[in-house]
Amino acid sequence: MSTTITREELRNILSEYNLKDLAIATLASHSALQIAKGAKDEGLRVVLIVEKSRLELYKEFSNIIDEYVVVEKFKDMPNIVDKLRKENCIFIPHGSAVEYVGPEQFLNIKLPVFGNRMLMVWEGNQHLKMKLLAEAGIEIPRQYSINENFEDLVIVKLPGAKGGKHFFLARNSSEVRKRLEEYLAQGIIKSFEEALIQKYIVGVPMYFHYFYSPLFNRVEILGIDIRYETNIDGLKRLPYNPAELGIEPTFVVVGNIPVVIREKMLQKVLDYGKKFVKKTQELLPPGVIGPFCLESIVVDDNTIVVFEFSGRIVAGTNIYIGTGSPYSWLYWNEPMYMGRRMAREIKLAAERGVDDLLRIVT
Amino acid sequence: MSTTITREELRNILSEYNLKDLAIATLASHSALQIAKGAKDEGLRVVLIVEKSRLELYKEFSNIIDEYVVVEKFKDMPNIVDKLRKENCIFIPHGSAVEYVGPEQFLNIKLPVFGNRMLMVWEGNQHLKMKLLAEAGIEIPRQYSINENFEDLVIVKLPGAKGGKHFFLARNSSEVRKRLEEYLAQGIIKSFEEALIQKYIVGVPMYFHYFYSPLFNRVEILGIDIRYETNIDGLKRLPYNPAELGIEPTFVVVGNIPVVIREKMLQKVLDYGKKFVKKTQELLPPGVIGPFCLESIVVDDNTIVVFEFSGRIVAGTNIYIGTGSPYSWLYWNEPMYMGRRMAREIKLAAERGVDDLLRIVT
Amino acid sequence: MSTTITREELRNILSEYNLKDLAIATLASHSALQIAKGAKDEGLRVVLIVEKSRLELYKEFSNIIDEYVVVEKFKDMPNIVDKLRKENCIFIPHGSAVEYVGPEQFLNIKLPVFGNRMLMVWEGNQHLKMKLLAEAGIEIPRQYSINENFEDLVIVKLPGAKGGKHFFLARNSSEVRKRLEEYLAQGIIKSFEEALIQKYIVGVPMYFHYFYSPLFNRVEILGIDIRYETNIDGLKRLPYNPAELGIEPTFVVVGNIPVVIREKMLQKVLDYGKKFVKKTQELLPPGVIGPFCLESIVVDDNTIVVFEFSGRIVAGTNIYIGTGSPYSWLYWNEPMYMGRRMAREIKLAAERGVDDLLRIVT
Repeated sequence: MSTTITREELRNILSEYNLKDLAIATLASHSALQIAKGAKDEGLRVVLIVEKSRLELYKEFSNIIDEYVVVEKFKDMPNIVDKLRKENCIFIPHGSAVEYVGPEQFLNIKLPVFGNRMLMVWEGNQHLKMKLLAEAGIEIPRQYSINENFEDLVIVKLPGAKGGKHFFLARNSSEVRKRLEEYLAQGIIKSFEEALIQKYIVGVPMYFHYFYSPLFNRVEILGIDIRYETNIDGLKRLPYNPAELGIEPTFVVVGNIPVVIREKMLQKVLDYGKKFVKKTQELLPPGVIGPFCLESIVVDDNTIVVFEFSGRIVAGTNIYIGTGSPYSWLYWNEPMYMGRRMAREIKLAAERGVDDLLRIVT
Repeated sequence: MSTTITREELRNILSEYNLKDLAIATLASHSALQIAKGAKDEGLRVVLIVEKSRLELYKEFSNIIDEYVVVEKFKDMPNIVDKLRKENCIFIPHGSAVEYVGPEQFLNIKLPVFGNRMLMVWEGNQHLKMKLLAEAGIEIPRQYSINENFEDLVIVKLPGAKGGKHFFLARNSSEVRKRLEEYLAQGIIKSFEEALIQKYIVGVPMYFHYFYSPLFNRVEILGIDIRYETNIDGLKRLPYNPAELGIEPTFVVVGNIPVVIREKMLQKVLDYGKKFVKKTQELLPPGVIGPFCLESIVVDDNTIVVFEFSGRIVAGTNIYIGTGSPYSWLYWNEPMYMGRRMAREIKLAAERGVDDLLRIVT
Repeated sequence: MSTTITREELRNILSEYNLKDLAIATLASHSALQIAKGAKDEGLRVVLIVEKSRLELYKEFSNIIDEYVVVEKFKDMPNIVDKLRKENCIFIPHGSAVEYVGPEQFLNIKLPVFGNRMLMVWEGNQHLKMKLLAEAGIEIPRQYSINENFEDLVIVKLPGAKGGKHFFLARNSSEVRKRLEEYLAQGIIKSFEEALIQKYIVGVPMYFHYFYSPLFNRVEILGIDIRYETNIDGLKRLPYNPAELGIEPTFVVVGNIPVVIREKMLQKVLDYGKKFVKKTQELLPPGVIGPFCLESIVVDDNTIVVFEFSGRIVAGTNIYIGTGSPYSWLYWNEPMYMGRRMAREIKLAAERGVDDLLRIVT
């Protein structure tokens, strides 16, 4: 798969835009409220693409949303492209965009998209994404093949698993195979190969939020979060053995908690961010643009092991809406959070003209 | 029980107030510092009712407290009503107010009280409060009767239990009865019927902070917290089985941690808030006014189960003093936290006059 | 050990300073970015002492760092003292300063040091520090001697243990001795006496950040954090018994999470802070200056047990960079965090002159 929109087409679209009246468009989900708030803070208009069933919530925030474009389903997005172009919209995708619009449609939509759409699609493939990290020189967990026999604590991840659903832990290869056979029977997976089997890294999770600015040519660390997962983060409060009560641990992300890291480890965090930028520029030019996240485990020997990445804004950045994070304050002498940072990059590029806007959209 | 103060009496009191020199009064405990800070931010005077033993702490914050009214015990509050009225005081109750002043006194005190005092007293009865939630159409945990035989993980709550003291978990009806018999013998309860037996919902806790504004006729989501409970949140860091060391889990709330929820689930959060407002308006007119909280478990099937409510400010809002929360920034383009939000509503009402003030006090 | 720099020498150094062009100097580690940001907010210049290997990270923040003084190792600090004095530098030490510079060198360095250097060195001795707390009238955990026989859950702490490395839990005296013998054999300790054996307090950890201001003669509570420790805070998410998987719990601090405490308990928190100030003034005149921290366990009977203190800024304060904390907003009507608070004290003292500066440096 690859995007079919050419640089020339993008240039043409942007040339017809009134750059003094730019809008951002986004899908009403994930981090849309943050994106809207950020755009308003920067003086951009906000066009929200919203499914009927979600309209009630977003109507509450008409102070930060200029226009609602109601659709039956997000996958109908191609139908509204003309309208969005008339409104001078830059589309800002988030973690639900590829999933809702569909990867192929997403790649081909005739709109300027903030960020690198190829990277966002690539992100959907667990095997490809780990390969990118490894090639970047970032430490990742050892991976096991389904054909290997091993005795090791592993976490098994499935491709379509949203927010951690159907992820499971196992202590050896036969436990893995047993569970995957059940999933196969239940139609949750179609083949064993879909599953990614990663050594379970013993340590604590931290999710590093980065912003790569093509305009400033720099990687900013804008925040860190810890995911709050049901039911696993509740089970730890249970003074019984869950297994004995017939309770299975699940890993569905429902929230995020703020955290800071020891300053000593920040250099490695930054180094990983730079390596990631460099490798995406090689493999998927023009490389990552704007927000990305390295989902990591911090180990007690001070290593940081990355078990996943996101090539766009993550929901964990919602923690810092309005206030900014302890890290963003080090770069910006004003409250800066991911939604606003994206809008700032767009605004600055627009002030410079089409050539600079072309550096931040695909 | 019901309040004996009439709307006419309230009107008379407020008519004698100098609305350009309003003060708020609150009890020195729970979230008093937040309430004081919020009032100062909005230009209201702050009168603090403080027990002698707590004066030292609150004297440190004379920058946000205009006057200290020292009492032996908070239950002496009726003695100072005249003074508070002379100071043009609106009383802002918090989680300790009903408990300290005593429900009957609290209901009858001849002062304008921000919020719905009947709801705050109602809140003290575990059975009534669950009934209100159920009738509102909000999902609650299955309740068991002490006379039922069951095999299910449950949490048992006692009426006077402050901050979770004497709460306990059990795995079946006989474990429940055994423990309640001990409590009966120790005089901790007077009858089995006092105990509320709720199915223990496996998931993660989240506490949703709402503000219902009669002036704007809207429900605002102003923040979310997770409670930090001793010793249960410490036990999970213990690499032993607590039971084998003779350690009993306890659930005493001593702190709060900030959290955000997946945006996808926000519509349900808002929906619950609106349902709650509506039902309180039916059952306890004029219904909830200002802050309330739905104490909830988020389950891995994306349902939200509410196991308790608070009809006034909760201490978890203290997290957002000064900075505002990721949610409050979506409504307000300034740092807005619960203490300040209450003061804002009072200030706006006062600017409009007595009729509007009467909409927010009981 | 004691400092060899006299008050007269300090006065002479400060008299040569241009007080209208003061700088702060700090070591590039721990909370240096916070300290730098705080100084900039207050209009002070920032001189960063940085090891070559760390320069890359800190170069990213040239917006808040005026000058980089590159050294091979921090222990070379004496070589740059002249330069720092020419730059009118007040040195702000943090949690890594004594360790990196070496206690003896640190005590003798001919520079004005913000804070009480004797206290910072004293802090390195686990036995002395517990003694100070006990004498202050602050509740501490019962301590066991290595020669005692006991059956009790304990935590054993080692002197050089950075961030919790090699700390361990044990359930009785023989378990303690067994492990310490291993450590002796491995050269991790030199004698049993080095180890501090504390009763393990069952409750939840909270770390209270204080600032003692000699200028205002008051103790401010500026924030609270919970430490995030690898791997212990990850193990609790593991649905297996770690021991059965051969995983040993470790307690290496790698991050910090914000938290607030029940207002009811704030008086005790303040009381402990004042007692600490008073005792340090008696034992180590002029006593603590600026930031300190009481590392505590909050127990379900509402007691607070302090198991450690820090006589300088702790990394947990990094949570509040830029935004301030819920507590700092109660004192300051502006975003105030520890790094900025220190700079404010220095700035105010400098405006008054050398006599006042002498009150905050040693």
